[in-house]
Amino acid sequence: MAEITAEEVLARFEELSLLESEFEDVELEMIRKSHALTTPLYKKRAATISKIPHFWALVFEQSPPEVDNFIQPSDSKVFAECLSTFSVSRFEIDDSAGSPRSFTITFGFNENDYFEDRVLEKKFWFRKAVDGVDGWEGLVSEPVKIRWKKGQDLTGGLTDAAFALCEARKKLAKSGAANGKAKAKAKAKAKETELPEYKALAQKIEAGEDASNSFFAWFGFVSSWRWVSAEESAEATKIEAARKEKRKNGEKVDEEEEKDDEDDQIDFQEVEVFPQGDELATILAEDMWPSAIKYFKHAHEADDDDQLSDLEVEEFDEDDESDGEIDIRGLVGKGRHSKASGSSESPPPKKQRKN
Amino acid sequence: MAEITAEEVLARFEELSLLESEFEDVELEMIRKSHALTTPLYKKRAATISKIPHFWALVFEQSPPEVDNFIQPSDSKVFAECLSTFSVSRFEIDDSAGSPRSFTITFGFNENDYFEDRVLEKKFWFRKAVDGVDGWEGLVSEPVKIRWKKGQDLTGGLTDAAFALCEARKKLAKSGAANGKAKAKAKAKAKETELPEYKALAQKIEAGEDASNSFFAWFGFVSSWRWVSAEESAEATKIEAARKEKRKNGEKVDEEEEKDDEDDQIDFQEVEVFPQGDELATILAEDMWPSAIKYFKHAHEADDDDQLSDLEVEEFDEDDESDGEIDIRGLVGKGRHSKASGSSESPPPKKQRKN
Repeated sequence: MAEITAEEVLARFEELSLLESEFEDVELEMIRKSHALTTPLYKKRAATISKIPHFWALVFEQSPPEVDNFIQPSDSKVFAECLSTFSVSRFEIDDSAGSPRSFTITFGFNENDYFEDRVLEKKFWFRKAVDGVDGWEGLVSEPVKIRWKKGQDLTGGLTDAAFALCEARKKLAKSGAANGKAKAKAKAKAKETELPEYKALAQKIEAGEDASNSFFAWFGFVSSWRWVSAEESAEATKIEAARKEKRKNGEKVDEEEEKDDEDDQIDFQEVEVFPQGDELATILAEDMWPSAIKYFKHAHEADDDDQLSDLEVEEFDEDDESDGEIDIRGLVGKGRHSKASGSSESPPPKKQRKN
Repeated sequence: MAEITAEEVLARFEELSLLESEFEDVELEMIRKSHALTTPLYKKRAATISKIPHFWALVFEQSPPEVDNFIQPSDSKVFAECLSTFSVSRFEIDDSAGSPRSFTITFGFNENDYFEDRVLEKKFWFRKAVDGVDGWEGLVSEPVKIRWKKGQDLTGGLTDAAFALCEARKKLAKSGAANGKAKAKAKAKAKETELPEYKALAQKIEAGEDASNSFFAWFGFVSSWRWVSAEESAEATKIEAARKEKRKNGEKVDEEEEKDDEDDQIDFQEVEVFPQGDELATILAEDMWPSAIKYFKHAHEADDDDQLSDLEVEEFDEDDESDGEIDIRGLVGKGRHSKASGSSESPPPKKQRKN
């Protein structure tokens, strides 16, 4: 292959960057298309599921390690006792100012001993930061307030503290906005670390490793980097679109502007109660939600499985067997499919579907 | 929630199975749609890539662990020296008898010291086995003959042995087909294990652990379970469609038929030269191929990275630096992007794109 000059390398980079944004457009189009085609199916599924007791608890018992690792026995107990519904929706699918990558995850609960809420809903916005040509982009969220009953908080106060900081941040941002523009914004950011709510949360995270292990701490997640507002994301999108236009016209794209170092001086993760919250949310939305039937069938196939037995035992521990309570093993183990799991010689249940 | 009878459980299972097949139809539709939208972009990308020396070698250097774990230093050397093109195509996308999930992976090479071939092309067929209601389905492939130059076979004869067994199998299947039908087929299968090519390959695999570690052994992959023919898959698809029709009409679906135990007595994996070949193929087709630009940019961002330095060193070891050979680091390290990697304080390169 012939030699290539530095100038040619730059030109090729520009072509590749333009192509990347064209691939991204197709991906967004595909998310919209998939949403349109699957929405009626998810409705039908929900109708069927509503007639199957403990469906979602069983699905969560069979969740892949990436989810299961975050579910403690005490979380599992809550799911088994009162998780009634689970759903994912794309709330910005037709919103030109938003992203089809944004989604809401909603958990429905029966009345229970742990918290007052019957619904816990967590929103994830897909946003871009104004930081250089290849600035950060990803999911950000606001902490959800869980109204824990007395002495029942599985997160040891983490969700409360995360929620309190979020509220304090909002107030600060408002006062910053009143003062107007960039310098004031930077100042507000710096001030954030001085908020009593910031210090309280940072200390809580540093001190209490155990409590933060609860799945429910995930409701307090903000970002794997830092919070990015809708306004910032809109600005970043505008900048990106302008760059794309230039690339299309074969114009040179400006070098990254000297950026404010403010961000680099703050360790935002100091107050993040669930650092992998975006990854967990993505698996919930893109694997657990679309593949729920598969996991439910696994639960049934695994009727000799330890986990399922545990779930069953818990059920029986707490309720009188004779009072008409659901026998989870009976629900999933007595279908015609149980035959297959009885034969250890049958072909492997493994399926290759991801191609 | 009210109690539920065993009969109701069965009815719900049927509803869920019907829904699963409807979701599957949507997925296939989405693969076709995505194919239509991305094909022109992949063409444009190939045109740009053809102007960037060592593009694919750099992409493979940056591959995720699921791929990288299979690339030995000696494989990496081959890629760095002569890998010229890489592509994925969906050869059954519009074939009603085939599957949009089937694909071909094609590697192009410059003339080299290792093998005579300039193109190594591996096909993966998505097929269903006739084995019960929830029978196996997945990717199967035929071993590819690599014309290794003398003393250069990185697989220690594995690809040759896998290819030889495949040819012998085909002859056996033909004679079986001449005798006609099921019993003869079962007999032929049993005979397979008695083929000298079968024994030779089984022994080779058992004996030579080291050789099988080469990435190139992947070209010998057949199946993570057993080979499934087009005819068998067509039959399985027909049975599945009939079951779906019954479910739609609310009819009871027949129990799984008593199945031939023949399969259970053979350990097909005894002659599989690359047990995870389907998983590797899937990652190549669904991650490396669509995300190649991202990996290429990583290669450039990682210009202080050890791996890349190794690649560069190899280049310089073998060629005189002054004779106009490509400086890989120069190619990827002198773009405007190098600035970002120089600043250790810049925001994390991590991107959240999978939602």
